[in-house]
Parts: sequence; structure tokens; C-alpha cells
Amino acid sequence: MGSPVLAGPALPLLLLLVLLPPGPARGAARFDPTWKSLDARPLPAWFDKAKFGIFIHWGVYSVPSFGSEWFWWYLREKKIPKYVEFMKNNYPPDFIYEDFGPLFTAKFFDANQWADILQASGAKYVVLTSKHHEGFTLWGSEYAWNWNAVDEGPKRDIVKELEVAVRNRTDLRFGLYYSLFEWFHPLFLEDEVSSFQKRLFPVSKMLPELYKLVNKYQPEVLWSDGDGGAPDTYWNSTGFLAWLYNESPVRDTVVTNDRWGAGSICKHGGYYTCSDRYNPGHLLPHKWENCMTIDKFSWGYRRDAGISDYLTIEDLVKQLVETVSCGGNLLMNIGPTHDGTISPIFEERLRQMGTWLKVNGQAIYKTQTWRSQNDTVTQDVWYTFKPKSKLVYAMFLTWPTSGQLLLGQPRATPGATEVKLLGHGKLLNWTFSKQNGIMVELPHLTVHQMPCKWGWALELTHVA
Amino acid sequence: MGSPVLAGPALPLLLLLVLLPPGPARGAARFDPTWKSLDARPLPAWFDKAKFGIFIHWGVYSVPSFGSEWFWWYLREKKIPKYVEFMKNNYPPDFIYEDFGPLFTAKFFDANQWADILQASGAKYVVLTSKHHEGFTLWGSEYAWNWNAVDEGPKRDIVKELEVAVRNRTDLRFGLYYSLFEWFHPLFLEDEVSSFQKRLFPVSKMLPELYKLVNKYQPEVLWSDGDGGAPDTYWNSTGFLAWLYNESPVRDTVVTNDRWGAGSICKHGGYYTCSDRYNPGHLLPHKWENCMTIDKFSWGYRRDAGISDYLTIEDLVKQLVETVSCGGNLLMNIGPTHDGTISPIFEERLRQMGTWLKVNGQAIYKTQTWRSQNDTVTQDVWYTFKPKSKLVYAMFLTWPTSGQLLLGQPRATPGATEVKLLGHGKLLNWTFSKQNGIMVELPHLTVHQMPCKWGWALELTHVA
Amino acid sequence: MGSPVLAGPALPLLLLLVLLPPGPARGAARFDPTWKSLDARPLPAWFDKAKFGIFIHWGVYSVPSFGSEWFWWYLREKKIPKYVEFMKNNYPPDFIYEDFGPLFTAKFFDANQWADILQASGAKYVVLTSKHHEGFTLWGSEYAWNWNAVDEGPKRDIVKELEVAVRNRTDLRFGLYYSLFEWFHPLFLEDEVSSFQKRLFPVSKMLPELYKLVNKYQPEVLWSDGDGGAPDTYWNSTGFLAWLYNESPVRDTVVTNDRWGAGSICKHGGYYTCSDRYNPGHLLPHKWENCMTIDKFSWGYRRDAGISDYLTIEDLVKQLVETVSCGGNLLMNIGPTHDGTISPIFEERLRQMGTWLKVNGQAIYKTQTWRSQNDTVTQDVWYTFKPKSKLVYAMFLTWPTSGQLLLGQPRATPGATEVKLLGHGKLLNWTFSKQNGIMVELPHLTVHQMPCKWGWALELTHVA
Amino acid sequence: MGSPVLAGPALPLLLLLVLLPPGPARGAARFDPTWKSLDARPLPAWFDKAKFGIFIHWGVYSVPSFGSEWFWWYLREKKIPKYVEFMKNNYPPDFIYEDFGPLFTAKFFDANQWADILQASGAKYVVLTSKHHEGFTLWGSEYAWNWNAVDEGPKRDIVKELEVAVRNRTDLRFGLYYSLFEWFHPLFLEDEVSSFQKRLFPVSKMLPELYKLVNKYQPEVLWSDGDGGAPDTYWNSTGFLAWLYNESPVRDTVVTNDRWGAGSICKHGGYYTCSDRYNPGHLLPHKWENCMTIDKFSWGYRRDAGISDYLTIEDLVKQLVETVSCGGNLLMNIGPTHDGTISPIFEERLRQMGTWLKVNGQAIYKTQTWRSQNDTVTQDVWYTFKPKSKLVYAMFLTWPTSGQLLLGQPRATPGATEVKLLGHGKLLNWTFSKQNGIMVELPHLTVHQMPCKWGWALELTHVA
Repeated sequence: MGSPVLAGPALPLLLLLVLLPPGPARGAARFDPTWKSLDARPLPAWFDKAKFGIFIHWGVYSVPSFGSEWFWWYLREKKIPKYVEFMKNNYPPDFIYEDFGPLFTAKFFDANQWADILQASGAKYVVLTSKHHEGFTLWGSEYAWNWNAVDEGPKRDIVKELEVAVRNRTDLRFGLYYSLFEWFHPLFLEDEVSSFQKRLFPVSKMLPELYKLVNKYQPEVLWSDGDGGAPDTYWNSTGFLAWLYNESPVRDTVVTNDRWGAGSICKHGGYYTCSDRYNPGHLLPHKWENCMTIDKFSWGYRRDAGISDYLTIEDLVKQLVETVSCGGNLLMNIGPTHDGTISPIFEERLRQMGTWLKVNGQAIYKTQTWRSQNDTVTQDVWYTFKPKSKLVYAMFLTWPTSGQLLLGQPRATPGATEVKLLGHGKLLNWTFSKQNGIMVELPHLTVHQMPCKWGWALELTHVA
Repeated sequence: MGSPVLAGPALPLLLLLVLLPPGPARGAARFDPTWKSLDARPLPAWFDKAKFGIFIHWGVYSVPSFGSEWFWWYLREKKIPKYVEFMKNNYPPDFIYEDFGPLFTAKFFDANQWADILQASGAKYVVLTSKHHEGFTLWGSEYAWNWNAVDEGPKRDIVKELEVAVRNRTDLRFGLYYSLFEWFHPLFLEDEVSSFQKRLFPVSKMLPELYKLVNKYQPEVLWSDGDGGAPDTYWNSTGFLAWLYNESPVRDTVVTNDRWGAGSICKHGGYYTCSDRYNPGHLLPHKWENCMTIDKFSWGYRRDAGISDYLTIEDLVKQLVETVSCGGNLLMNIGPTHDGTISPIFEERLRQMGTWLKVNGQAIYKTQTWRSQNDTVTQDVWYTFKPKSKLVYAMFLTWPTSGQLLLGQPRATPGATEVKLLGHGKLLNWTFSKQNGIMVELPHLTVHQMPCKWGWALELTHVA
Repeated sequence: MGSPVLAGPALPLLLLLVLLPPGPARGAARFDPTWKSLDARPLPAWFDKAKFGIFIHWGVYSVPSFGSEWFWWYLREKKIPKYVEFMKNNYPPDFIYEDFGPLFTAKFFDANQWADILQASGAKYVVLTSKHHEGFTLWGSEYAWNWNAVDEGPKRDIVKELEVAVRNRTDLRFGLYYSLFEWFHPLFLEDEVSSFQKRLFPVSKMLPELYKLVNKYQPEVLWSDGDGGAPDTYWNSTGFLAWLYNESPVRDTVVTNDRWGAGSICKHGGYYTCSDRYNPGHLLPHKWENCMTIDKFSWGYRRDAGISDYLTIEDLVKQLVETVSCGGNLLMNIGPTHDGTISPIFEERLRQMGTWLKVNGQAIYKTQTWRSQNDTVTQDVWYTFKPKSKLVYAMFLTWPTSGQLLLGQPRATPGATEVKLLGHGKLLNWTFSKQNGIMVELPHLTVHQMPCKWGWALELTHVA
Repeated sequence: MGSPVLAGPALPLLLLLVLLPPGPARGAARFDPTWKSLDARPLPAWFDKAKFGIFIHWGVYSVPSFGSEWFWWYLREKKIPKYVEFMKNNYPPDFIYEDFGPLFTAKFFDANQWADILQASGAKYVVLTSKHHEGFTLWGSEYAWNWNAVDEGPKRDIVKELEVAVRNRTDLRFGLYYSLFEWFHPLFLEDEVSSFQKRLFPVSKMLPELYKLVNKYQPEVLWSDGDGGAPDTYWNSTGFLAWLYNESPVRDTVVTNDRWGAGSICKHGGYYTCSDRYNPGHLLPHKWENCMTIDKFSWGYRRDAGISDYLTIEDLVKQLVETVSCGGNLLMNIGPTHDGTISPIFEERLRQMGTWLKVNGQAIYKTQTWRSQNDTVTQDVWYTFKPKSKLVYAMFLTWPTSGQLLLGQPRATPGATEVKLLGHGKLLNWTFSKQNGIMVELPHLTVHQMPCKWGWALELTHVA
């Protein structure tokens, strides 16, 4: 015989009533809590124009900073020897993941410095992990007592500090990642055992926390993640999103993604993320985002990473160019250290991206996809388009040895079509190619004269 | 505009429905969730017979083990210089009370050893602080994630280990202390701000936790404490007690105390505790308990305690004798160290009590109060009574220099009344006193012959 | 081929020259650096009068406070499973004994409080372990950089603090224990490999350190220990003692023991200690000391000790009585905790000794041995003697059930011999026994009237 | 009155005798312990050919890794607020520098991985700080008990591990840095107070340690540092060097520098270092070395360094080119982290150097200085020379916009002089310049065709 508290199938229904908004706040609600209605919401325009964001994975996993931000899962659930051995070799016998909490000091964390580096990267938005699957919140959540950054570790409201710095010092939009489920939250585990018939976790933890998070920090990206195998009905995702779009303080500008319950990814919600490091190489009919990491093997910081584990700036520029040409945004991830620094190798990559965008940003920001995404004749040439000003951009990642770049896609108009190299400025000669397209005469430039070193963009006018 | 979750006066009502038992489980419920009904429940008989229990205060405060188990409150809320200085002088600048959690190792904790010491003390029940006002639970509560003994510190289920050892190795009843409120639980603080109109804390934390605790460990004493200024309606104490008495697995034998909400102490519930160290010195019409500590100044262990801070065995025997004579039980407290030992001075006191009770237990266990509690002629003489066998016990704390003990209360019958010294056994001569009562001739005993050293008991037959 | 530094048999000779005193400082040196001369030095008179001292074992072993103060040796050299397991179960994989150093905080250490407790114990001298075999010095030795209490752990000069407190607040003499060898000092180990032909360790570590120690703290007991299997010539013990007796600031009052090199124990030096817990039970022709511990199993503090591991006050009084009657001094040991407290059980024992000595001190302090040490007829009766005042003391540990104490040794004189119980004062009746000796009529006293509870003393005048 | 041990002016003389070599081991000693004799020793040939070495600063300062490897000095002696505040803000009140020792874990240290990175850098020798001014030795020195890497922190013989890896896996020579003095060694401080009349420290610590170090690890570079204001006679530097050159196991190949006592720098010993980051920009008559750091502000690792604090690869190539052209070697420093990793930014710089040297190494290794060090007409052109093969190398750091490089120094011979770009290989056209020298026609290369990106070298034959 059990106690009659908060259990049984009757409960979720009862509490659902409580969680539903009391009614339309101003005029009629625009969105119903159904996927049909919610999916029809137009994506706020700023997001497609932004193209480039920075993802930040920071949490208690930044303390071991070993292997992966999934450290806890691999250690406790999967018992992967690499992780088990690491603990055994480096910590007392009873030391567990939770004991890393107090060591997450963030002692060098300076939100202003981070904001300046983010600004220098050329990104237009930032997404911080307010809570990862470990459940540790980077703000002082009332629902994560003694497992949050204000009670433990930094003893600071990390989310607030970064929000203020980003909003005061940069033109980036501020966004938050939030994991719905938590690997080892006892109430989630209890719900899971009931095949999610019980809803203790969303009712008493996840939903109240998420509402507070939005109200308190007003993120313009809400990057949901981690359904833990539970359907969106368990999470009451549609109910929450209806509130977010109808009532929340960010209802007009907030952008969300597609990770709202088992089966929703790449199908429901805001923009699509589909899978980590998603980069399809062709046009998609729905706005999407390629979220990827500079460290090839981890989203969280790894002390044991060597230089070969990091993508080069050439790799990163290529990711950006391909993604934007195919209609996506690039969300490029860094993992700060447990003491709050962005390691020099990450800072170098971010600043290199900024250097590249300072020259080539016109071919990226506020562009749209063109009728062709990449060139069919010359490899590694990718197109973007500005319909209003009728400009087509051809970004090429390899400088041809011949000094001539053959573009198979543009239909040029003699006497009208003009071609310039971004960062160089002078009109370039071009001729019709024997095949389709045009042959552009690139300027002879020494290494020091190159407008940049890892990818270039031609601006073409009057092409079809 | 706030989120519509778990807020507003409507909620408690709704959830109260959920929390009420679904209906009588077997036959009609014997008790209604009203004080009138609950207060009328007869106290299970074992408790009054037991007379002597051991209280154990153990928790995260055992790590600083400085000043008091109220360390956290004095430090964070009261900012008492002694505590603030202690932290400043001994820990890193950002070190806070929560950081003591991982240091609560309990590495030497051996429940069997504790059980053996408890048995040796002569106590008949033990009450362990399953959760004190700090909120740290000594078992793996799902509602105190990462702030409990299974997730943090000992990484063991302390409650279970002690329960099993006590039940397997001793004849003591197993009881649990549980603090209703928690000083710094964010949900409790939020409720408090609403003058307890909101009930987030009892609904999502305290009530589910308490039901689980009872179901899981089946304590036969439930020692509630700490209302935090909130009324019993906030805690839904009557609802819980009705379940406890009607439905719970311990419904037949469980004993509770009187700390169930503002105003309930010394008035409602099971036996009365009234105040800490309550020892009125006269008979009470309601069963009561004197809970007190061997350390005069603290319930939790203090590293900085000197020998003069501990009560002597003479003091302790006196407490027991006085309490039992006036109808109370004595709940004598020890505070184990953070690494799980019962310090030798506590062990010495416990074993000394056991030594005394081995000789004098007949005058304590299963006795009732007599018509007089203490003697009016000779000081420090206290009476107990066994109606069935018509025995009166006169316990005296001072051995008279004359070798004769004058008892003013007993009405003796010549030729019938017999007097023995417990642990000695032979009949003692007595005469009628000039005043009322009798004069008992005590035996001449050297120090080594004394049945015990800190208080003695005469057994009198055929007295009125 | 090795480097020519500080090696080879020639070195000790050379350096010995350096170490020898440059010549008599004032008048002719009284003592030569030979055992013959040194052993002939009369023991300063204060020591034999003092009778009772307190030994204090405190060091890095007080941090694990587990098993024994030989923890390091058992762990690293003997690899005793109990110790190896303890480390494995409680510390990170690479954690070694040296890592306990910083944890030896002494945060509650209050030398004044210690001094007051020492005074209350009735002891007349105290001996503190300035350096045990681990090599950690309780003062800031220049020769133990980063392995001493000023550089590491307490960051305080423990020796100085206790010296000042003892000298300012008590009438105890201040003494220091010093271990000649160090288990794991690399230079000692190198010497050992050479069968002590090399003398790197005494020359560059032990001798300079010991000279400085004496000059700086002027101990009146120098309790040498631990020869590590090396002869006194290796340690240059005679050279050092000659300096100590001729030149040092404590040359007039300092007392030393007999542990000055392999073979010197119970043979050379000052008073004899012979072995730990030495208590021969009969008279010795040379002044000796019984050094023993209240904890039966360890000199250093043990967290895992239960009350049965401690000697009772009855045991301790017996040790004192037996030792003094046979011409010895008792050096009773306590082990403070790593944070600087004298645990309540030790404090209780110390104060109980003081209570006993307050009543019976006349039979102990400044006494001499009598012609008989103990009584041959009645067990557990021990004698001391004050020749000047012609008083004989008979200390008895059991109060006879008959109320009459038979003393087989004293030859009494009718009409002259008087007998008193210390703490009682009145003359007691006595008669000649049928056997030899006298039969003393003890007073009838209740337990509260007894002058003390664990041993008594009769003062006899005019006996032979 | 003090003890007569190891004190007074007589001692050093005595011990000096002990320290002097017992006599020539094989044939007559080649070098006397005088600067005149020692300075005349020819530098072993390998050193000048090597040109490029890596310096590694690793020690306890790598734990705070804040500000500078002089952290301790700035904190304790200079009390610089930045350091004092850092300690106050991040550590317990009594935490001192020594307490960083156990935290120097080196848990990720893999000597093979380091060796591979060193090899990839193109360096020909490595110099590791076996002991910095803090006194902590990276090997298990018997003279630094409990303040060395075997007793504390890594618990590994770091020097041995790196030595073995370097010697087994690379063609680099293995060298060791050793600080003569130690900021806070109590014996050094005592000597200092005596104006270095006492010599306790070199006699009992520094000299025996240094001899053992050389015998044990056989370093081929011995990079002495830190005289602490004491003259070479105090250190007995000439005595030691005579042994090093005459007797030691590395007597034939070892190279030393010039830091052997106050006044010896840039004047006595082996090659000159003169000052940190010494780069005179002109030829010197004596072999020298430019030791400098990639981190502009510190030799030890700094967690708080941003990317702008690191020299770029362009800066580093420039340093190498300038230094080698002027007859120096470049010793480029990295600071590993406390857990034993070479951070990715350092690894990137090292591998970039290796990339550059793979192409341009011919112009660096085994070269000599030419009659001109740099070009007088075109800036940033630096020359080296291989007399045997009569090759002159002109290294240029800026690729001329015109595609033509004017070299003012070489005297060419028509029909004989040939010019090639290293990494390109084809003969380049050249013409006589109107001014002196020649005008070289560089090839037209796209960015991808460039043999390298940060400096290039022309190989010229038949020039004078």
C-alpha cells in the first residue's frame, strides 16, 4: 500500500488544468496548444538574417573536462572503462560526479570579456546551456536547490551576468539552451519507470523552472533539448509553447528549435536542428541550423584535447559557407574551462572567424539562398543571394592555381554584369566560359595582399 | 505577468484533494483529519513502558561541528560573528555551508556498533534525525536530490543501515525525527513570502517525502519538528496524521509528538514535548517526553566542547529519575562525529546509564507514576509504581550520611511492608518515623559493594 | 664514478671536528664526551620529586588518527593491509602520507587551555613530541623545510606556544621529545645503506636541528628516541650530551633519558625508560620512568577508538601508585586531535588524576621509596616514604569489605604510631595484627563521604 | 652562546676541501677551477649547429598558473596586491604557496606525447626546469625531501620520464635548467643574513644536489640560473664546473650557460644568455642564446592569458631568423599546465615552427653567420651561411608586393650564381640591381602554392 500523494494516472490531468493559462491575456490567443497551430507560426525575421551564432557548453562537466560533456552518463550509466578508470585514478574511492559541483569555481569568469570575444567573432547570437542533462542550472533555480551555480560552485548567477554583458556590450541576441530531461533526477527516473504515465518531473520541476527561466532572462533563442524518450505530451510542450508565443515577454521575437519530445525533432517546433552537426549539403524547405563544435569530439571543454582535435579555421569557414548557402544558420560551439576562461585556442578561432566575416560578411548576413547552392562545375564554390539589391555571392574555398575561377551557374549579361572580390573592391575581368557560366580573372595578390586567407567571396551583379 | 504554474490560492485546494486518501482502505477510517479526532487516539502502550530513548542528531552540521547544529542559520541568517569568523578563518572565501556536504563522509560509521552501544545504554527506543532544518536527508530522498546522504557525503542510506541494525540486534524501537520546514529551501521561502498562502513546499516536497519516509522505514516514533511559523493547515498535518493512524504500515504502533504546526506544541498530536529540555518536576495529565542533550549547549557534535560542557552521569541519572517519576520519558541526545563515530565520552555516558539501569531498571521500565512524585521530607527521593505487583520504588540520589533514609510518603503496614535495595536484595530494617512515613536502615557497604554509584532504588511492598 | 661531495669514510671524522665544542666556555668542562663521564652526572633533583608528567604525542599522524602514530611506517614500509586499505578506501589513488601535512590544521589549538588542563591533572612536567619518527617538526626547523608546523598545516610555532603557556600559567616543567632518526628521510636511508659509515643525516640534519631546538626552547626534559639501529657514535650522542650538560642554557636543570643509540637504552644517559609501558613492579637502582598511554593501543589519537580502548581512572591510579612506589616517574600520554583539541575523554582522565592527587598528592610528590615497595600480606597496597618527616604512606587500591586494612610491613610503636586517611584527617584506630604488622580500622564512610573513589592513602607516623 | 655546529667562518674552508675532487681521475685534469681555465673550454660543437631549442618551465607555480612563475616571490616577499588578493579570494585563510604542492598532479602528463610534440617543432634540444627558485625539484632529490615531484604532487620522476622519452623517441638533446638559489630556503636565508660568509646552503643542499642531478640524468645542457646576489665563490661554481668538464659523465658534450654567480652573466661560463629575451640584432663574438617565451608575460603557464598575450607564429619565425643570423640559438619557452598538458595554443605554435623548419631548416640548422647579418637595402631580410657548401641563405619575412626581392648584400657572379626558393626548388631569374646586389624574380604563387606562410628563404650559390 502506498501513500496517495502525487501518484496515479489521475494526477497529470488534474495538474494539467493548473498549468494551462487562465485564459487569453490580451485579445484572443494567436496560437493554440497544438502542433498544427504552433508550427504555423512564422519564424521571427531576425534569426534568418543572423546566420551565425555561438553555442556555449558550460557546466559541471567542465570540471573533469575529460572525454565529453556526457561524462556523467558514460561513468554512471554506461560504466565505460575510460571514465571509470579516470575516476578511480584521480579521485577518492567515494568521489562521485556530484562532488565536482563545488569545484566548478568559475573564478576567472568575466562576462564582459566573453561578450567582447563573442562580438569579435562576428556572431549575431549566442546560446548558453542554462541547464544540461546533468540538471545543474547556471542560474539560481528554486527547483534545483543545491545543484545550481548560485548555491554551489561559482556562487554567481552565470546566466544573468552573461545576459547583461551581451545585451549591454554587443549587438548579439541572447539565447538559452535548456535540457528538458535530466539523466538522474529521481523524479524523472520514477516517471520513466511508469512509462511516463506519472508526470512528477515535468509538473514539479521542469515546467515551473522553464517558465521562470523565460520570465527572468527573456531569451530570444530557446534551444530545447533532451526528451529522454518521453513524448511531447509528457512535457506538455505544446502548452508551454502556446504560452511562450502568446503570453511570454519574448512572444514577439523568441525563436525555438525542434526538440520538444520524442518524434518532434525535424518535424515540429521552430527551426529544425535534426541532428548534431547537421549539414545536409542541399537546400531544405524549412529553416534549419547546423550546430557543431570546434572540438571535433566534445561540446564541453576537454583538458586532454590536442591541437589535432580542433577544427582548423579553414574547416570552420567551410562549415559556415556551406551551411548558409543551403539556408541554414551555423551555431558554432565552444566549451569554456571550469574556471571561466575561453581557452586561447577557442579565442583564436573565434577571432579568426570575425576577421573573415569582417571582409566577407556581406556574403553571409541577411542573405538568402540562391537558385543554386553550390557550383556544379567548380568544386567548393557556394552561392548566396540578396534579392533586393540583386546581388549574388560566390564564395570559393580554394584559390585556383590558374588565377581564373570558372563559375558554371551564373547567367551573366555582357556590359551589365560586374564582378568584385570582397575586400579587394576593384572590378574583375570576366569572360563567358565555353561551357555554361563565366570565367573570372582573379587579381594577382601576394600573400600579404590577400583580403583574407581561408576563403573568398565574389560579388556578382546583374546575373540570373 | 507571471507564468500560471503552481501559484495562486486555488492551487492548495486542488492539490489537497490529491493528497487526501482515496477512501477508507479497510472498514471505516478510525480517525478523521481533525485534531478532535486525532488527539483522541490512545498512545500505543509500548511507549509509556519504554521510559528511556536515545536521540541522535547527525547531519551536515556534524562537519563544522562547531557551536551548534543551528550553525547554518546562525551563519547565513543571523550572521552571528562567531560563526562568520569561523568560516572566514578556516575556509576559502566562497566556501558555504552546502560545501560541507561532501565532507560528511561517515567513513567510520558502523550501524552494528551503534546498535550495540544503544542496546548497552538500556534505552528502549532510538530517534534519528532523518532530516533536520538544513534539509539534508539521511536517506536517498527523491525530493532532496543531491542534498541527501546517498547522493552526497556518506553515499549510503544511513536511515536504512541503522534501522536494520537496530531491528536485528536490539530490542529497541526505531524512530525518526523529521523537520517539517527547511531554513533555506527556496520553495519554502517563496511560500513564506506569501504568508503561507502558497503551498509549493509542502505539496511538492515535504508531504511526498514524509509519506515515502514512513512507508519505507516504518518508524515507530515519528518525531516531527520545526513548523517555520506556518500553521498546521499549511502542512496539512491532520491529513497526514489521519493517514498515518488509519492507513500507514505503522498505524498500530506508531507514536508521534506534538510539533505539527504553529500552536500545536503541548496541545495537539501524540505525546507532548512542549519545549527542549522540558522537565516540569511535577505530574502532567498527558504523556510527555523530556528531550535533552548530554552536551549542555548543542544537539549536534561540537569539536570545541570541553569535559565541563557535558553532563555528568550523576546529572543524567537525576534527569531520568525525575522525568520518569513525573510521567515522562527521557529522550537523551548524542551527536555523532562527521566520520560516524560516537565519541568515547558519549559512549561512556551511554554505558554508564546502562550499568545503572541494569541494577535499577525495575524501578523505571513499565512503571507508572505514584500518588506522590517525590518525597516531601527527604530531598532527591523520587517514586514510581507498579500497580499490578503493588510495588512502590523510591529512588534516592544521595546516600544519607547517617545510613538511614527517611521516607515521608509511604504508608507502611507493620509485618507486611518489606523494603529492599535494588542490586542488594536483602530485606532492610525499617521503623515508623516520628513524623509520617518510615525510616529505612540502609546496609553498610563499602564503595566496591555498592550496587551502583550514582543513585539507588528501594523497592517497597505493601505500602499505600 | 660519483661526485666527491659529502661522501666517503673520511667525512665523519672531518665534520666531527667541526661539531665538537671549541673548548670550555667557562672554567673547565665538567663532563667529557664519554659515557663514563656523562653517566656519572647526578640527575637534577626536581625530576625525582615531580613523579608525574604528561606526554603529548601530536603530529601529522593525528590527521589520519587511525590505528597508530606509526601509521606511515605500517603503510609504506610494512604495507599492513589495514593501513593500505584505509588509504585506498578514503583517499585519491596517489594520496600519500605527506599529503596529510596540510590537513594538520590545529585550528582549535589553544595552548593556554592545554596548560590549564595540564595544571589541573596534577602533573609536574610535560613532554611534547617536537619531532616524531615522521620527521615533521612542531616548530619551524630550518632543517625540515616544508615539513614542519610553521611552513605547513598549523602554520604556527606549536612548541613555542605551548612552552610560553606552560611557563606562564603553570608550575610544570617544560620538556621535549625528539626522535633522532626519521623513517624515510632520504639522507638517513642513504646512511643506512652504508651501514652508517656515511653520516650525512646527523651531520646535516639531526645534530644542527637538535642544538637549535635546545637553544631556542630550553627544554628541561629532553626525551630522545629512535636510534634507527645506529650506534651512538653515529649520532655523536656523547658529544651532544657533553655540550648539553656543560654549555647549553639548560645545563643545570635538564634531564634526559636513555635512548641515545643502539644499546644505550636502560644503560646510558639520564634516567631509564627501558621499554614503552615499563613498569617492573620492584625497585630499581637507577631512576626510571614508566611512559604509558591512556589509549591502550596507540600514542597518537585514534578516531576509531571506543571507550573500552581507554584505561579507566582506576587503571591509571594503579599505574601511578605502583610506579612511584618502585622509584619511577609516571609519564602518562595523551594524543590530541588534528585540529588541536584534547578530547573530552582525555580531559576527563586528566582531571580525575588531578582530583585524586589533590587528596593524595602528599603520598606521591617528593616522596622516596620505602624499604618495602608493596605489602606482602594485603594485595594492592603500595608504600612511599618521606624520610625527613618520617612519614610512611600506604596506598591501597581496594577498600576492604571488612572495614579493616591489614598492613604486613610497618613496624608500629604503641602509643606513638599514628594513622590517618588522607582527605579524612582523623586519627584511626589500629591494633597489632596476629601476623606481623598492624590492622587499621578504616572509618565508615558513605560513598559521598569518601575522600576519593579510586584508591586511598594512609599516612603512618613513627613506623619502622 | 650558540651551538658549535656548521657555523662560523672556518667551516666553508673545511668543507671546501671535502668538495674538491680527490684528484684527476684519468690523466691530468684538463680544466682548473678558475674562470680563466674554464672559460677557455671550447663549446661542444653540437650546440651551435642545433640553433633551436625548447625551454619548459614547469613547477608548483603551474598550479596557481596566475600572473607569473614568480608568483611566490610576488606574494610572500613583495606582497603585490594582485597576488595577495588572488590568494585571499580563492583559498582558505591559512593557505600558502606550499599548499599548492599536492595540487601539482600532472595527471595527464605523458612524456612520450611531449617528446613527439617537441620533435614536431623542429627543435634540436630541450631544457626542462629541474628546479626553479621555489626549490621544488622535478625529480626525487634527497636534498628536497617532501618538496619534490616524487614525494609530492605528481609522485613521479618527471625528469627521468622526459629524459627517457626524449632520448628514445627524438633526435633532441636533453638539457636541464637548475636554479642555484631558492627564494625561501631557510639555510639560504641564514647564509644571506651573514652576507654569504656562512655557506650552509651550497654545502648541504645545492652542491650535493647538483652533482647528483648531473650524475643521474646526464644533461647535455646545464642551464644554471639565479645567484641570489651571491658571488660564484659562495656557490663554488668553478669547482663544480671543473668537475663537470673533467670528470662528469657528460664532460665531453655538456654545454652550460653564463649564470654562475653575481657578475658572471655575459662574462663567464659557457654560452652567454646575458638577459632574458636577449636579442641584440647584431653579431656577437661569443656564442649566445636568446631565451624567450611564447607567452609575452610569463614563463610559467597562466590560466588568465588571452590570445593577444601569445606571440604569433610570424613573431616567432622572426625571432628565430634574427637570432640565428646573429649567431645565437633560440630557446623558445612553453609552460605546461599543472595537470601535464601542453595547451593547444602552445602545441599549435610548436607545430607551426616545425612546419616552417621542414621547409626552411636548411637555412637554419648547421649554418654559420655570414659577413652580413641582415640586408641593408631591404628590411627584414636576414642571412645565414654554410661555408663548406658555399651556400648563402637570405631569409625574408615579407613577400614583396612587386614580386621582386632586392638583396643589397650578395655579390653575384653572372652565369654562376643560382637562386632558389626553399620549398619551391626551381631556379629563379635574377638581375643585377642598379644599386649593389641583385634583384630576384620571385615565382607567382597562389596562397595554396606557397611553400610556407610566415617567412621564406632563398638559397644562393656562388655569391660572395
